[in-house]
Amino acid sequence: MEWTREKRYRPYEQYSALELLELQAQANNSAYQLRYHIRPTSGLLNDPNGFSYFNGEWNVFYQSFPFGATHGLKSWMRTVSKDLVHWENRGLAIAPDTKFESHGAYSGSAHVVGDQLFLMYTGNHRTSDWTRVPYQVGAWLTQNGEVKKLSHPLIEQPTFASEHFRDPQLFEVDGKFYAVIGMQSQNNKRGEMVLYQANQVTGPWRFVGPIKTGIKDFGYMVECPNLVMVDGAPTLIFCPQGLSKNEFAYQNIYPNLVLQGESFDLATATLRRPGKLQNLDAGFDVYASQTFNAPDGLAYLISWVGLPDLTYPTDRENWANCLSQVKVLHQKDGQLYQSPVPAMKSLRGRSQVIDGQVTMVDDQAGQQIEFEVTIEPNQKGTLWLAADQILKRGLQVKFDTQNGKLILDRSKTDEPTAVEYGHTREIDLPANQAVKLRIFLDHSLAEIFVNDGAQVMTGRYFTRQSDQTVAFDRPTQVHGSLWQLNKM
Amino acid sequence: MEWTREKRYRPYEQYSALELLELQAQANNSAYQLRYHIRPTSGLLNDPNGFSYFNGEWNVFYQSFPFGATHGLKSWMRTVSKDLVHWENRGLAIAPDTKFESHGAYSGSAHVVGDQLFLMYTGNHRTSDWTRVPYQVGAWLTQNGEVKKLSHPLIEQPTFASEHFRDPQLFEVDGKFYAVIGMQSQNNKRGEMVLYQANQVTGPWRFVGPIKTGIKDFGYMVECPNLVMVDGAPTLIFCPQGLSKNEFAYQNIYPNLVLQGESFDLATATLRRPGKLQNLDAGFDVYASQTFNAPDGLAYLISWVGLPDLTYPTDRENWANCLSQVKVLHQKDGQLYQSPVPAMKSLRGRSQVIDGQVTMVDDQAGQQIEFEVTIEPNQKGTLWLAADQILKRGLQVKFDTQNGKLILDRSKTDEPTAVEYGHTREIDLPANQAVKLRIFLDHSLAEIFVNDGAQVMTGRYFTRQSDQTVAFDRPTQVHGSLWQLNKM
Repeated sequence: MEWTREKRYRPYEQYSALELLELQAQANNSAYQLRYHIRPTSGLLNDPNGFSYFNGEWNVFYQSFPFGATHGLKSWMRTVSKDLVHWENRGLAIAPDTKFESHGAYSGSAHVVGDQLFLMYTGNHRTSDWTRVPYQVGAWLTQNGEVKKLSHPLIEQPTFASEHFRDPQLFEVDGKFYAVIGMQSQNNKRGEMVLYQANQVTGPWRFVGPIKTGIKDFGYMVECPNLVMVDGAPTLIFCPQGLSKNEFAYQNIYPNLVLQGESFDLATATLRRPGKLQNLDAGFDVYASQTFNAPDGLAYLISWVGLPDLTYPTDRENWANCLSQVKVLHQKDGQLYQSPVPAMKSLRGRSQVIDGQVTMVDDQAGQQIEFEVTIEPNQKGTLWLAADQILKRGLQVKFDTQNGKLILDRSKTDEPTAVEYGHTREIDLPANQAVKLRIFLDHSLAEIFVNDGAQVMTGRYFTRQSDQTVAFDRPTQVHGSLWQLNKM
Repeated sequence: MEWTREKRYRPYEQYSALELLELQAQANNSAYQLRYHIRPTSGLLNDPNGFSYFNGEWNVFYQSFPFGATHGLKSWMRTVSKDLVHWENRGLAIAPDTKFESHGAYSGSAHVVGDQLFLMYTGNHRTSDWTRVPYQVGAWLTQNGEVKKLSHPLIEQPTFASEHFRDPQLFEVDGKFYAVIGMQSQNNKRGEMVLYQANQVTGPWRFVGPIKTGIKDFGYMVECPNLVMVDGAPTLIFCPQGLSKNEFAYQNIYPNLVLQGESFDLATATLRRPGKLQNLDAGFDVYASQTFNAPDGLAYLISWVGLPDLTYPTDRENWANCLSQVKVLHQKDGQLYQSPVPAMKSLRGRSQVIDGQVTMVDDQAGQQIEFEVTIEPNQKGTLWLAADQILKRGLQVKFDTQNGKLILDRSKTDEPTAVEYGHTREIDLPANQAVKLRIFLDHSLAEIFVNDGAQVMTGRYFTRQSDQTVAFDRPTQVHGSLWQLNKM
C-alpha cells in the first residue's frame, strides 16, 4: 500500500476498528517485538513526550500513528510506571481533534502544576494549501487521567520562525515557567533553540531570546531541545538536522547531541562556558531524547529508538520503533554518564557467572538478556550476540582493549538496516585497560553501556529469534554475569 | 446508549478506530482494572476458549465484544504465557467473518494436532428472520500465529437439538478425537451434554450419544461442558441453566458444577459410578470454566469471572469482566481440590509475617495482594479486606472456626452488585479446626482458596482503591504472610 498524503492524514474515525484490531494483533505477534521496552500497540511510535512524575507515577507519553509504519496523523499515547521499568499502557491520551492540531498532536513535555499535569506541546496545523502552521498548545491532565485542552494556543508562530517551530520543553525555576523550543529561522533558514518565559503556565508567554551556546551553526533545524540540570551542570540535549560534519562528526542521518556548560543565564538565554559537543549515543538509532529533572533531583532520560527518514524491517508488519530504557544522567569533569535505573535489576531472572578464559558463554541465552561483562586489558576479538552456534550470523561487538576500540557491527544480522549510513559504529576506549560492558538485548534492540555509561551504543538489529548464542570468537579473559530478563 | 440488536451486531469494520482507541484507553484507565488477570483490552470478555499448550506456550483465548459492556458480535482474542501467570495479549485471533459465524465466533476449545493447534468452536449464524443456526466449526492456528479456517462446518445442527447447540470441548484419546457439546433437546427443550467422535479432527464427526450421568434433569440448557481426567477420575465440569434447586442448591443466577465418576465409557458416553454434584466455586461470579489435560498430565482450569444476564459497575466504563487465575485440579476421595499454579509465587513482592493475637494486619496493604493466613480453632470474627481504616467499608470474610462457617460478604463494599442474588456466599468448614485461607485481591477481584483449595470462593467486588486495609475486627489467633503482588 502506498501511503499517500490523503491516507496519512485521514481522521482516526475514518479508519475501521477491525483494521486497528488487526494491526494490533500483527504488532503483538511480531517475532521482533520488544518485551521490556515501551513499544507501539500498533503502527509507528516516535518521540517520547511528557516525561514526568505525577500523582505517584512516572509518565511517558509517545508520538503515535496507530495505522501503519509511516509518519501520519500523530496523537499522544500514555504509559505509566511505578519504577521506570515496568510500564503500563494507558492508551490514547491526546487525539488530534482541534483546529490547532488538525494535522497532528506533535511533541512536547509535561510539568506538574498544582494537582494536575500540564502538557505543553506542538499542534500541527495545515491550511487548505498545505501550508504548515505550528501552534504551541496546552492541556491539563487530571489525576483520573482526563485531558482538558486549553481553548487557545500558548504561543503562536513568531515572525522570526519558519513553519518549523516545535517541541517545547517546559520547566520551572523559582516559580517561573520556561520553555525551550526548537525552530528554524525565517530569514536564513538555520536551526536554533529559543527560550520563552511565563509567570503562569497558561501564559502569557514571552520570548526571551535564542539560546546562546557558542556554536555557530546547527544546520537547518533543531528538533527536541531539552535544558536540564545534571549534577549541577546545565545540559542541553537536542537534535540538529543538517549539522555540518566539520562542526561535529556523526554517522547517523541526524545526531542527538549534548552540550554542557557551567551555568545557564535564564535572563539572557546564555549557556556560560560551554564544553564540547558530544554524541548522546554512539549507536545507530537514538533520537529525540527527552529528559527532565525529577522531584528526586536527578535527571532522567528516555529516547526514541528510531530516526526520521529511515525504514525498518518491521515496516512490513505495519509497526515501527520503540523507546529506549530510561537512563539516569550524571556528569563528572564534563563527561556525561548514563546508567540504567536501579529497578532494571528487578527484571533479572535466571543467571550464570563467567570468569576466566571464556569462549562460549551460552548457546541458549536467547535475546531477552542482560550481559554484564568486563573484558580484561590486551584482549582482542569479537563478542557475538543473538548469534547462531557457528558464529556466522548475529550482532557483533568487536573489541580491542589494547588499542582501545569498540565496534558495534550489524552487518552479519539477517536484515541489516540503514546500510547507507554504515554497518558499524565505533568508539574509542582508554588503551590498555579493561572495558566494562553492560549489554541489554530485547529481541530487536541492543543497548550497550560502556564503562559505567561513559558511552552508550544503542541499536535496533533484526535477526532470527532462534539464534540464541552469546559467545566470544576466541578464548577471552573476562568476568561477568548473564541474566535472563523477565518481560516488563 | 441503548444497545439495540442492530448496534450489537454491527460488523467490526463499521466501528471506527477512534472509538476503539477511546474504549481501550477507558478500560486501561479504570480504577477497577485487573493487574494480574486476563482482562479485556476493551469491551466485554466472557468465556475462556481454546485453553491449551502449544509450541512451548500456554494459550488462553477468550470471547470478546470489543465495543462495549454488552454481549454483541463475538470474536476470539488470544493470550499466551510461559508460566500460566504472566499472560501476554496477542489480540484478535478469530474475527466473525464467515457465513457460519456471521453473528459471532462463539466458544470452543483447542487441541494440538501435528505441529498446529486445532480450534473447534461454535459459529453462530442468524438467518434473515433472526433464526439462530449453530455450526461447530474448525480452524488451524499455525506456529506463527496465523488462523486458517476450514471451509465447511465440522458438525451441523442435528435434528435432535434446538438452536442451542454449542461450546465443543475437543480432546483426544488413543489417537481418536472426541468432542463434548452442550445443547438443548429439540423435543422437550431440556439441557444435555452430548458426545461426538472422529478419526480425523477435520471430520467426519459421528454422534456417539447423550452423556449419561444419572442426573435426571439439568434444566433447559447446559453450556460449556468439559470432560477431563483429574488424578485418574473422569470429571465433568459444566454450566446448567434452569437447574432445579431441588436437584442442587445454588445461589448464583447459573451454577458452574462438577461431577466426578470412577470411569468414563467413551463408546456409550457413560460416566460410571458418578459421585455427588458439587459447586465448582462457592463465590459469586465463576462461570463457563474451561479445563484440559496438559502434556504434563495435570488438569488446568480457568474461568470466566462474570455471569450471563448480570450487570457490573464497570459497564459504565464500557468494559466488563475478567478471567480467573489458572488453577491446577486434583482430587482425593471424591473431593476436588483447586490450587494456584506454582508460578503464582513469582508475583510476590514485599512481604510481612503475622503471628499470634492479631487485629490490624496492614492499613496500607492495598488491593494487589496475596494473604495466606491460618485462623486457629475457636476463633470467630471478621477479616476485612480492601477496607477503610475504621472497618466500616470493605469486603468481609466472616469466620467461625468453632462451628465451622465461612461467609464472603460484599454488602459493605461501595457498589454491591447482583444484589438480587444475595450479598453473601457461605460455606461449611470442619468444626473446631483451624482454617487455612489463601486470598488474592486484584483491585476488583477476590479469589479465596479455602483449606488447600478444597473450596474456592471467587467474587468481583467494587470499592474505592484508597481503602487499603487488611484487618481483623477483633484480636484473632492467626499466623500467616501478606505479600504485595507485582503486576503480571
